[in-house]
Amino acid sequence: MLETDIEYDQMLSVLGRRLQPNAIRKLTLLLGSKEVISLAAGAPSFETFPIEDLAEISARVIRERGRFALQYGPTRGQSALVEAVVAILRARGIGGCKTSEIVMTTGSQQGLDLISRVILDPGDIALVELPSYIGGIIALHNAQAELVGVRQDDGGIVISDLREKIDRARSRGRRAKCLYTIPNFQNPSGVTLADERRKELIDIADEHDLLIIEDDAYFDLCFTEEASRLVPLAALRPDRVVYLGTFSKVLAPGLRTAWLRAPEKLASKVELAKEGADLSSSVLDQAMVIEAIREGLIERRLPELRRFYRVRCAAMLDALERFAPAGSRWTKPIGGFFILMELAAEADATAMLMDAIDNGVAYVPGQPFFVDGSGANTLRLAYSKESADAIADGVERMCRVLQSAKAQAKA
Amino acid sequence: MLETDIEYDQMLSVLGRRLQPNAIRKLTLLLGSKEVISLAAGAPSFETFPIEDLAEISARVIRERGRFALQYGPTRGQSALVEAVVAILRARGIGGCKTSEIVMTTGSQQGLDLISRVILDPGDIALVELPSYIGGIIALHNAQAELVGVRQDDGGIVISDLREKIDRARSRGRRAKCLYTIPNFQNPSGVTLADERRKELIDIADEHDLLIIEDDAYFDLCFTEEASRLVPLAALRPDRVVYLGTFSKVLAPGLRTAWLRAPEKLASKVELAKEGADLSSSVLDQAMVIEAIREGLIERRLPELRRFYRVRCAAMLDALERFAPAGSRWTKPIGGFFILMELAAEADATAMLMDAIDNGVAYVPGQPFFVDGSGANTLRLAYSKESADAIADGVERMCRVLQSAKAQAKA
Repeated sequence: MLETDIEYDQMLSVLGRRLQPNAIRKLTLLLGSKEVISLAAGAPSFETFPIEDLAEISARVIRERGRFALQYGPTRGQSALVEAVVAILRARGIGGCKTSEIVMTTGSQQGLDLISRVILDPGDIALVELPSYIGGIIALHNAQAELVGVRQDDGGIVISDLREKIDRARSRGRRAKCLYTIPNFQNPSGVTLADERRKELIDIADEHDLLIIEDDAYFDLCFTEEASRLVPLAALRPDRVVYLGTFSKVLAPGLRTAWLRAPEKLASKVELAKEGADLSSSVLDQAMVIEAIREGLIERRLPELRRFYRVRCAAMLDALERFAPAGSRWTKPIGGFFILMELAAEADATAMLMDAIDNGVAYVPGQPFFVDGSGANTLRLAYSKESADAIADGVERMCRVLQSAKAQAKA
Repeated sequence: MLETDIEYDQMLSVLGRRLQPNAIRKLTLLLGSKEVISLAAGAPSFETFPIEDLAEISARVIRERGRFALQYGPTRGQSALVEAVVAILRARGIGGCKTSEIVMTTGSQQGLDLISRVILDPGDIALVELPSYIGGIIALHNAQAELVGVRQDDGGIVISDLREKIDRARSRGRRAKCLYTIPNFQNPSGVTLADERRKELIDIADEHDLLIIEDDAYFDLCFTEEASRLVPLAALRPDRVVYLGTFSKVLAPGLRTAWLRAPEKLASKVELAKEGADLSSSVLDQAMVIEAIREGLIERRLPELRRFYRVRCAAMLDALERFAPAGSRWTKPIGGFFILMELAAEADATAMLMDAIDNGVAYVPGQPFFVDGSGANTLRLAYSKESADAIADGVERMCRVLQSAKAQAKA
């Protein structure tokens, strides 16, 4: 069964665009009535939540500082937390940040929403990766931007395609205002932006006065030595980059605590927008995160957390190697939660999903992640939820379905 | 000293429009360096927070249901909480609500922001009370509405002025799309909408296809038998009214848990907007509120909570009666946190504030609450924070300052 309602909501929202109400009802029954191995889940595994630590921290924070932790808090976030974020950024190579550059947000999703509202006017062009995170697409779309997709390959954004899309916008008398990117272990592709392209990206941003929105939600979940040395775009050129980070993947997403770092003036505008949006994020959640940082809880757990997801990623790659139908290919992540699988050009991953669920495995069709409507032959596979054994089992079941669909198509 | 950063932020944001940076720096030092009785605080008193209960609840919720309480949750809110809200609405006379009409929000501020974004296009006219809650004004303003003020008297919105403002908009070829109102114990005026006007308001909404945004944040904090029988506008005409309620005043604002009830189709749009805005509000906060409701914690505390604020309100009214300068008048709330004081026409409450703080008392100048720029001679006095004795003392100090400013003006 799927773990939480939000995954289920997202799946329905993805499928709702393609499937009929009847099919959705059938799907609901199937998901509710039997065990389905979920390669669809985009959330961290609850097995990684430090439940006892957080139970103890919550009670202590309320008892000792309830007067503040239960009261309204500053829009920008608790000052101790903002200071802790400055230190985190420094450790990531983004040095010299001032607290006035930080705004705490209700998950990175709110950071995406606020920055979109602040910088975009209706009809502005926002560049996004092909594929990209649906929540980012929604936020940019809600600010009434025109979304233009930029191709990715195994090294992330294809620089020549980026240049082409910018030029094409200009030839229509329009200007690309921002680029939304998830450079590390991207959702949904699992791809990481190559080192040399990072510098090229910054050059292009300079050249075209482009603001980069860098969503680095998975930074800490790196699997290799190489992945642990990745340099954020914000470290290269802080004045061109709005940087988003989160505690959702390394502590618990239900605490909804993330941050946005932007050049000071822009951060002020974001703060003002946030004041109107919700006054502040949960004050208790922030107070708990402060304690978790102070006690070293987050730092201490990182090696185990990386191992947890690395093992599962390896299990998925191994199973794909063994069972994937000929002609399919997939990404090889060095961190994060996701693998993007690409089937033969004529395959339709949405059409196959019902069959897959009938066979006890769920995934997310890739198409909704592509703003240009392509990607019908792709699927997003998450290794963040199930055990290594269940992942191997799920991939095998899924591949049988893909194989038989392929056989039918040929017949 | 002011209790929390947000009050201080709000005060500065209010003053920032009128005072010079130097004055703000001086104010910062004053507020930080000595005891000031705050009649400015808009927040519930921390003395009302059930700290031990919430400490116990938080730890228990995380230990027993951490797998869900720390995970992503559905955008609309935890289903147990949504069902509890349906029951709360029923108890308020808003019967027959479906769960599909409810969206949980990060404080009512987020409800205001989301509904504004969903219903308003740039340049639409939104009617607001004179004066009105600044957070509501900001949310409507951020949706690029044109704000038009409607006069209030001791019975709330003046119906003839509402009609006039609607007609005047129409004569300009424009349409008033919504009316934002806080009918009970309004922030900042403390005024309550008269019974017979509630029906008239609904008639006008029908006649002019006006959506009413009813912000009922203070509903539970009623001081009199009469106040406890007030009928929400949403009970009279649910299909014309978006109703906002919150747990901030009856439990703890730091938990940032509130709700919006709207006609089903509108609620779906709000849910979609919220998905882009933050995926969901704090899941832990919601899980704690569910427990607080289940245990009867909120219901049980209401009588004491009402007494807490009623006593303080009485102390303020009494002190005003004794010390207020001749020619001033003030509202007599039957619930909530606030009294609006009106000085002689030529008085300037902003100009007097520094003097007041020098004399150890702070209030919020009323002008920023008036979208038409009027109200320079008004001030918002909150009795929600200080003890009855401190309130009496603070009002006396303040009235001395007002009196001496008056004497100087005459000299």
